[in-house]
Amino acid sequence: MTTVLAASAAGIPAVERAVSLAREARLLGSTAAILGWDQETMMPGGGLGHRSRQLAQLARLEHGMATDVRLGEALAAAEDAVRALPEDHADRVNVRELRRDFDRATKLPADLVEELASVASIAQHEWAEARKASDFARFRPWLERIVALNRRKAECFGWDRASGEPWDALADGFEPGCTAREVAAVFGPLRARLQPLLDAVRGAVRRPDGSFNEHPFDVDAQERLGRFVCGAIGFDFGRGRLDRSTHPFCGGSHCNDVRMTSRYSPNCVLDGLGSSMHETGHGMYEQGLDPAWVSTPMGEAVSLSIHESQSRLWENQVGRGMPFCRWVHGAMREHLGSGMDRFTAQQVFEAANVVEPGFIRVDADEATYNMHVMVRFELERAMIAGQLAVADLPGAWNGLYRDYLGLTVPDDRRGCLQDVHWSGGMIGYFPTYTLGTLNAAQFFETARQELPGLEEGFARGDFRPLREWLTAKIHRQGRRHLSGRLCEVVTGAPLSADPFMRHLEAKLKPMYGI
Amino acid sequence: MTTVLAASAAGIPAVERAVSLAREARLLGSTAAILGWDQETMMPGGGLGHRSRQLAQLARLEHGMATDVRLGEALAAAEDAVRALPEDHADRVNVRELRRDFDRATKLPADLVEELASVASIAQHEWAEARKASDFARFRPWLERIVALNRRKAECFGWDRASGEPWDALADGFEPGCTAREVAAVFGPLRARLQPLLDAVRGAVRRPDGSFNEHPFDVDAQERLGRFVCGAIGFDFGRGRLDRSTHPFCGGSHCNDVRMTSRYSPNCVLDGLGSSMHETGHGMYEQGLDPAWVSTPMGEAVSLSIHESQSRLWENQVGRGMPFCRWVHGAMREHLGSGMDRFTAQQVFEAANVVEPGFIRVDADEATYNMHVMVRFELERAMIAGQLAVADLPGAWNGLYRDYLGLTVPDDRRGCLQDVHWSGGMIGYFPTYTLGTLNAAQFFETARQELPGLEEGFARGDFRPLREWLTAKIHRQGRRHLSGRLCEVVTGAPLSADPFMRHLEAKLKPMYGI
Repeated sequence: MTTVLAASAAGIPAVERAVSLAREARLLGSTAAILGWDQETMMPGGGLGHRSRQLAQLARLEHGMATDVRLGEALAAAEDAVRALPEDHADRVNVRELRRDFDRATKLPADLVEELASVASIAQHEWAEARKASDFARFRPWLERIVALNRRKAECFGWDRASGEPWDALADGFEPGCTAREVAAVFGPLRARLQPLLDAVRGAVRRPDGSFNEHPFDVDAQERLGRFVCGAIGFDFGRGRLDRSTHPFCGGSHCNDVRMTSRYSPNCVLDGLGSSMHETGHGMYEQGLDPAWVSTPMGEAVSLSIHESQSRLWENQVGRGMPFCRWVHGAMREHLGSGMDRFTAQQVFEAANVVEPGFIRVDADEATYNMHVMVRFELERAMIAGQLAVADLPGAWNGLYRDYLGLTVPDDRRGCLQDVHWSGGMIGYFPTYTLGTLNAAQFFETARQELPGLEEGFARGDFRPLREWLTAKIHRQGRRHLSGRLCEVVTGAPLSADPFMRHLEAKLKPMYGI
Repeated sequence: MTTVLAASAAGIPAVERAVSLAREARLLGSTAAILGWDQETMMPGGGLGHRSRQLAQLARLEHGMATDVRLGEALAAAEDAVRALPEDHADRVNVRELRRDFDRATKLPADLVEELASVASIAQHEWAEARKASDFARFRPWLERIVALNRRKAECFGWDRASGEPWDALADGFEPGCTAREVAAVFGPLRARLQPLLDAVRGAVRRPDGSFNEHPFDVDAQERLGRFVCGAIGFDFGRGRLDRSTHPFCGGSHCNDVRMTSRYSPNCVLDGLGSSMHETGHGMYEQGLDPAWVSTPMGEAVSLSIHESQSRLWENQVGRGMPFCRWVHGAMREHLGSGMDRFTAQQVFEAANVVEPGFIRVDADEATYNMHVMVRFELERAMIAGQLAVADLPGAWNGLYRDYLGLTVPDDRRGCLQDVHWSGGMIGYFPTYTLGTLNAAQFFETARQELPGLEEGFARGDFRPLREWLTAKIHRQGRRHLSGRLCEVVTGAPLSADPFMRHLEAKLKPMYGI
């Protein structure tokens, strides 16, 4: 029943010692993950106060373990011991990545960690209130503190003083090795090609039929459909769950215990299904990790962008494609009742691909979504570089929304107050959404080339070839490669916006008659 | 939203320090409690291997905190500081009980703790297999190891060499201060009075109508009924949950986060309801603890017998009484559908009070249940004293079942292999079930005297006076008194079998016409 855990592939005692010590902190972190899931899904409201004390204690203990001097000594010895191994040998990878984690954890003084956590916790509350009232002035002093603390944090981590900038040091926590320069080099061409497509869509005479996603369907039936689809595309319910929560997420503590959530509302059946498929992409990445290497870098996800590539791939490349819609139309007829009689598979497909610029990122379609991300990247990069004062954020935000999406933001609630990330202290996070989207398209293009008949299979409900390909090429690799290198290894080319644009254009041009 | 935690009622720094240190271990223990609940209710089967690693880590960390030398030093200082306070002052109670916990934790060598845990974990598996096959020989070597380890454990804890015996040292872990001599002094008169009643019942010509508890009802409807009743008697669903599990239990991590489970089967509606009310008694004890003293003895339950008194009181004194049956009959008509049309409140009452000796403790009625417990107490006491060899257990067990219940045990599956406790290493636990039953009757007799019209209220669905009385008299007292003293403080008399026997006789004599 229990997998035997591997500590060193080459049987090196120094590696075993370092891995075992590092595993302790991760094991405790996996306990915190269950408590976090429980809080969002099961915990009665009264439990909140005690839960925050439980989580604070676990975080403190985990940080102590992750920065333990004995771990530092063990790592130094392990580094000597793996020097002769090939670069991508499991032991060498684990030691390299444990060193990265250890250095990041120890570079940050405990008082800064605590101050960030405590400011973020108040700032999140202040942000929620400010958003309700669309009152940026209320949030402004908190965002100023968060930006200042993040600048201090960047100083602690350091960055390449020759060609880099402080934002890089922050992004590295979500996307190891990521730099603003590289992100800009990908986002520039993306925008250059996306903008004309969006302009063409805006001017198009033909429009897809979105009525299916406005028709009311019972939410319990939607949930049953969601579970059926998630199981069919490959989520193993013997090693995970799918529950409901206000904000969908994928958590859990182990590749054999993955906890996903989704949400359903009566009049947007495709939003609920898309959200379930999105989380299932995350969930299958976690379930695809190597159980023998659990709680070590070789059994962990590479980065947020690669994680997001898995969720976007199932949500967009698969879920918004005609072959999948053909298959899921049958499943919908079975699960959603007689309301489905009036809708064809073509209508499901069209409703899944309506493009409509809007103010809110989380409600955005597949095409405009990335514009929202690019705006945030520009702004946080400038704030952290000291080139944009927090006071000037609303104006800058609204200006960029005009540039990128041709929209006039009516108020800060639908503008710079809409996202939770900055108030939670997370700066450097946003680009991973679009990097994930681009990776998804690039991975999928390669999969289509390597797996003939792939999409014909989708139309029959056969998703196994894709899932197994992703597991072998990506999930089982753990943190062997950084995400940029992984993309090259899997697809033979560095990350580019082209596959994503080809994917969009091939779908939207006929649909909009452009 | 968060209660301010109290560390010292008198503001004594030495007490604050000891309480804060002790709280750390308890806080971590409360995290383990959530993981334990999750394992029984939510965790996918695949998660078991990792979960056991998470729980082992938490147990190790918690034991380290509970035996930390700094805690020992802080306690010594705190003991000096509280010497002048009254005996039942919150600070003095906390220091006294923390000392009890600390001494028990430190008296046990870590290797014995680990050996017990590891033997118990294999023994539980072996027991489950042996029970299936009714094969005592398979379980025997494991029980021998468990008895030997528990004898070593008793040596570590020590006992009163003049008048006590090693069993006392083990029972103390479940029931502080409990001795075999005291238990025997209560059980003797209980048996002496129970036996003639059971004989009379066996010979009675009139029998209650048990048909209601054999009629099939939908289990989802039963669950809704259970939730409704638990809420009506006083469980606060804003500070707790009720789910399903194979074996009902009450767990959770805090008085504001209580997790209960129950089970329902189609043909025993009263078993499911009784189980839900039983767990609700446990749950309301937890919810009634003082939130300011959470994770300290002043905010903890006294002992297993007092915990069991709360569950038995709601299950038996309330739930099997005619006033409650009158009220719940209306709730049943509302929740259980048209199947209820043929049953009267009198039939519900009679079905709840059928007395029938059987082999299995967990299926036993209110009257015969205690005979099962007394058999186990005699046997484990003799095994730990070295007066009964494990090899002779089946014969001794079967002999006692003839004596106590007039039954010939057909096989060990329905005999000495039926319970999980011994295989789990728990010796000294069983008597708390009957001590709880007796405490329940004695508490309830006092409550009836102090609260006029109490049972008339039940018939109207008014349970608040009883609940508030229990909270004030018992729950809010935390561990201020040991259980024996608590019984005297609340009822004015030491624990006796008389109130329970009066309760049983008043109900069963008319019902059986004896």
